[in-house]
Amino acid sequence: MRKGEQTRREIVEKAAPLFNQKGFEGTSMSDLMAATRLQKGGIYRHFSGKEELATEAFDYAWGKAVSGRLDGVDKIENHVDCLKKVIANFVERRAGLVPGGCPLMNTAVESDDGNPALRERARKALRSWMTSLTGIIEEGIERKEIRSNVDAEKLAGRMIGSLEGALLISRLQKTEEPLSDARVCLEDYLEQNIRVQPGASRSRKH
Amino acid sequence: MRKGEQTRREIVEKAAPLFNQKGFEGTSMSDLMAATRLQKGGIYRHFSGKEELATEAFDYAWGKAVSGRLDGVDKIENHVDCLKKVIANFVERRAGLVPGGCPLMNTAVESDDGNPALRERARKALRSWMTSLTGIIEEGIERKEIRSNVDAEKLAGRMIGSLEGALLISRLQKTEEPLSDARVCLEDYLEQNIRVQPGASRSRKH
Repeated sequence: MRKGEQTRREIVEKAAPLFNQKGFEGTSMSDLMAATRLQKGGIYRHFSGKEELATEAFDYAWGKAVSGRLDGVDKIENHVDCLKKVIANFVERRAGLVPGGCPLMNTAVESDDGNPALRERARKALRSWMTSLTGIIEEGIERKEIRSNVDAEKLAGRMIGSLEGALLISRLQKTEEPLSDARVCLEDYLEQNIRVQPGASRSRKH
Repeated sequence: MRKGEQTRREIVEKAAPLFNQKGFEGTSMSDLMAATRLQKGGIYRHFSGKEELATEAFDYAWGKAVSGRLDGVDKIENHVDCLKKVIANFVERRAGLVPGGCPLMNTAVESDDGNPALRERARKALRSWMTSLTGIIEEGIERKEIRSNVDAEKLAGRMIGSLEGALLISRLQKTEEPLSDARVCLEDYLEQNIRVQPGASRSRKH
């Protein structure tokens, strides 16, 4: 049983880069067999089919992406700085991730007119990613670090949209510039439109 | 010959929604046969293979997207307003396009780790889209409608990144909000950071 669980996990880990790079449709049985060094029967003893394996591979890849993006955020006190850390992580921390770019973008684009199970997984991933950001923003508003008129949902959507869009361009152009420019742009926006100015904050406290 | 050209064109038009929705890998021979009502031999009498058909289908879908996005822009005098028209077209004018979302995003995501011919097509499409926008921006700078310190390449990249990222979220959430919010955000940015203020412009002229 413990051995079975370990094999299952190894299959997911080896399948994840294939699905993230080649997509659900583009990943063939022979790709999966070559990567796992197992026969078809050896793989599907652990999964009901390609779809179950692909959804678990997505969860694995997405988990790595999220933990990279949120890394160190809980150690930062000011909530605007937390958002800046999320942006920095997105732009800088791409080593150690499952290769092939953002699993959310890849799976959303492939499944938005297709596979409902994968589409649902991508939709939930976006929702959880939005919830992480709106949580930071709302706490920042409560602590008067973020302006009270900020719409948390909109700000989170803007951040995710800008970063994912910049990643799309960066990957296609094979340059870091669009990503680093999106970072500058978002940081400026946070400083100018989102952060409660130290003076304003202090005058409120006293 | 004229008949052959017409059949070829019809195959491309019918294949384009399949490739844009299901992707290159996800589109099967039987999908193509059903959509075109032709046998395999009838299709591949006109194309060297699936890849040639897919690249032509991409060009067709992308051509429709670009003409929609640039529609009416040449009738607008002020170049900041031209940029706003491009944004409005992107957000509003999605009827009449090849179904399945932005062909550039779809093809970039599927091919960035895969098919080199499609990847090259997507890369060229992005380049042409960037060139259209930088052209408008540079002309706006020349005419002193856009501030002289604006980096045309960066601004074009920000606009494309924000719009494509918002489209990704909108399509996954099946709501228009992320797109309409990206529009508001970009319009504010253009007014606050890009447009030469009427007063400033006038004082320069005199």
